[in-house]
Amino acid sequence: MPSPDLSILIIGENPIRAAIIEDGLREAGHSRVSMLHEVNAAARTIQAALPDAIIIDLESPSGGTLDHFFSLSRTIQRPIAIFVDRSDGAMIDKAVAAGVAAYVVDGMRKERAKPILDMAIARFNAFASLTRELEQARGELEDRKLIEQAKGILMRTRNLSEADAYGLLRSTAMNQNQRMVDIARGLVTSAALLGS
Amino acid sequence: MPSPDLSILIIGENPIRAAIIEDGLREAGHSRVSMLHEVNAAARTIQAALPDAIIIDLESPSGGTLDHFFSLSRTIQRPIAIFVDRSDGAMIDKAVAAGVAAYVVDGMRKERAKPILDMAIARFNAFASLTRELEQARGELEDRKLIEQAKGILMRTRNLSEADAYGLLRSTAMNQNQRMVDIARGLVTSAALLGS
Repeated sequence: MPSPDLSILIIGENPIRAAIIEDGLREAGHSRVSMLHEVNAAARTIQAALPDAIIIDLESPSGGTLDHFFSLSRTIQRPIAIFVDRSDGAMIDKAVAAGVAAYVVDGMRKERAKPILDMAIARFNAFASLTRELEQARGELEDRKLIEQAKGILMRTRNLSEADAYGLLRSTAMNQNQRMVDIARGLVTSAALLGS
Repeated sequence: MPSPDLSILIIGENPIRAAIIEDGLREAGHSRVSMLHEVNAAARTIQAALPDAIIIDLESPSGGTLDHFFSLSRTIQRPIAIFVDRSDGAMIDKAVAAGVAAYVVDGMRKERAKPILDMAIARFNAFASLTRELEQARGELEDRKLIEQAKGILMRTRNLSEADAYGLLRSTAMNQNQRMVDIARGLVTSAALLGS
């Protein structure tokens, strides 16, 4: 079964088309659906309402309008589906790059509102979890490099063994109630400042 | 402009529906389009022809048929678009998890063939590049851990300084014309085997 308790914001200047999408979602069991016909107020409304997912109907948007929503997509970190009546390959690439979870060209129909919403949410979650894993792996790598660098600085300037340098970093972190990587970062920055 | 030189394989038991997709692609400038109506031969045909992208039309597939194509999607690493006439949220989740780049519910029309192909390729590339970055970051992390471990083993068993342990790993790698991480992996495995 779907998750009918999600809050969904439909954005579209054309009230008839927006109502078709709303009907499709309500018939599929969604009750928390709100509408915004003033497209220029999109960013403000999203920040105030923080909907779980957003469906934008643009019919035949100008490149500027599309770019506006693509950049919105980058910042708000929510599943977004965009309906347009036509598009070219370059715009499709841009939509994907902006993290638009469903970019539907010429496929707006009441019956499709629900599967497209589900698809947008599924894709958004898959992409977000991959991005999170990447950030985590890169962060861990960065931390290790900093600790290695800091150890090297201590070994050189204080003539310590690797184990002693590591121990000194660790005990300093414990005494200061900080993480080792933060101590290491401070040391690397300070050593650069002091030229040591 | 599109990339009309891509080779595209259309798979679908219903020849009329497959021909609609083919028409849409040819009208959009694609000339290297081939068809397969024998769905059971899909894996074999894909492995032989290695198409750049695959469009599968399934109308109302059984769960088994869908699962078959989802598992195919995981192995072949190509942009795949699947058309189905109806689907539920669970199948949509499965399609996304299997890396199906476009899973289109009830939206098969000639005019949509080309934008959906473009979308599938764009999404496939975006996901593939994110996955590659993740593998690279994890691989680098794994390499660093192995080299750290190997250094630790040398420092302990041969009573070396960190710098000397590192230098020994590096010179061994150079002498054997191998990467340091491979020497480190061999050492870590051997030390475990030898209990040293």
